Amino acid sequence: VAFQGEPGAFSEEAALLLLPKCAPMGFPTLDRVVAAVKNGDVEAACLPIENSIYGSIGRSFELLYEADLRIAASCVLTVRQCLVAANTSTLDEVRIVASHPVALEQCRGLFERHPHLSPLIAHDTAGAVRAMKDGALKADACIASSFAAQRYEAHVILENVQDDLNNYTRFFLAAEPAVVPTLQGSAIRDRATLAFELQNAPGALWEALGAFAKMKLNLTNIVCRPIRSQPWAYRFFVELKARPEQLDAAVLDLKQYGYAKILGAYSTSL
Amino acid sequence: VAFQGEPGAFSEEAALLLLPKCAPMGFPTLDRVVAAVKNGDVEAACLPIENSIYGSIGRSFELLYEADLRIAASCVLTVRQCLVAANTSTLDEVRIVASHPVALEQCRGLFERHPHLSPLIAHDTAGAVRAMKDGALKADACIASSFAAQRYEAHVILENVQDDLNNYTRFFLAAEPAVVPTLQGSAIRDRATLAFELQNAPGALWEALGAFAKMKLNLTNIVCRPIRSQPWAYRFFVELKARPEQLDAAVLDLKQYGYAKILGAYSTSL
Repeated sequence: VAFQGEPGAFSEEAALLLLPKCAPMGFPTLDRVVAAVKNGDVEAACLPIENSIYGSIGRSFELLYEADLRIAASCVLTVRQCLVAANTSTLDEVRIVASHPVALEQCRGLFERHPHLSPLIAHDTAGAVRAMKDGALKADACIASSFAAQRYEAHVILENVQDDLNNYTRFFLAAEPAVVPTLQGSAIRDRATLAFELQNAPGALWEALGAFAKMKLNLTNIVCRPIRSQPWAYRFFVELKARPEQLDAAVLDLKQYGYAKILGAYSTSL
Repeated sequence: VAFQGEPGAFSEEAALLLLPKCAPMGFPTLDRVVAAVKNGDVEAACLPIENSIYGSIGRSFELLYEADLRIAASCVLTVRQCLVAANTSTLDEVRIVASHPVALEQCRGLFERHPHLSPLIAHDTAGAVRAMKDGALKADACIASSFAAQRYEAHVILENVQDDLNNYTRFFLAAEPAVVPTLQGSAIRDRATLAFELQNAPGALWEALGAFAKMKLNLTNIVCRPIRSQPWAYRFFVELKARPEQLDAAVLDLKQYGYAKILGAYSTSL
């Protein structure tokens, strides 16, 4: 299973949550993760799709759509940042704390409460832990997950150092359509994601969403993305609470208004 | 005017496009940019809100909402990446090319066409040019704008090296409500952005969007954001083609379904 990031990244933890027996393989970008599925280097991709603080990760939806992959499952991972040191030093001994800018930003309170700490920008949370252990990064500690600390045999000095305790990230497990049934087994598919494109006209989105409202299907997310080849034209991704048989009727209705495609029907049990 | 990034960033270029006589001031994060307005350190903020490839920048909308700022104007900037060297070297002499991961990703074709180039991750496009000129970054060239090259007296070796020529970023100029009229002058306000919150129920978004469809107001963007304190509950940001007087009627209608607020009525002439 391909994931974006270095070994020890949250996405690797998510891949192991979705498929406990899988062998996760890290790639530098989301584009490379999806390319690895298309090339047959991996069987599935684990893609972050939404963070409760930062919002939807549009690029993941776009890649699923372009590569014509299907969503096999979804899971939610709680983001718990820790202060991780290379050795058994104490908080008082730490000066420079390295991490990805987003992780540093998530822990602003830590730096305010302990003014002797200075942030240092690194390009990855888990990668910072590895570079610190290697001696390649001149930091006394990093902000990273306990999963990353474990992976690189580093020491957790403080747990739960992020400001917002309601910090969750959702992930999709996606694969080629033929592979999806094997990954899903007998899981109950209670959720679905659709893509559709609309003409930019008054009421167009309202008319299209009527297809779901009529059937009393609850929308749980909507993502609006520019269509790359047509500036300021949009593709929508919606997630619904729907069983597979309800889905087909809704898509048929939706197709009156423009192009529509099912990206997957899956379980949200994880 | 506060912007996010180092001097020479695209956001600084946008600030000067929005207010040609302003003095732009750089901050490390979008949160700090908005805090600078609230603290009175600057009069306005220049915030990126959408990129034609990467989609909406949800954090900018969230910050505008939380800080209760008003949108005074918007502009669109074409992203034109260049290969920029510290001195007058030629393409053949360049080996290591540094930039922000997103900029490197935008220029994948360049690395494929010239396999002797190796990408090096930096945390900012303009910052990489500065660090290269200083000798702090061991790179032969950077991917950055011609604006950044000019700012640091670096040399443009190749222009327009990004894969996608339809790469635009939109920006909002935002300020405290009392300051907005001074910034707007006599500009015709033909566009508006609203925020509204909805109960997570079947048809809720469809019903709310009916308020705009009834008045034949064209939606030009919709952004769905998680509400931080309530996991998986959502706040919507919509942009409309509407004159200020149409707006008040639509908001009144919208308020039947939940909380709604106008984030600004502004011109899109730039």
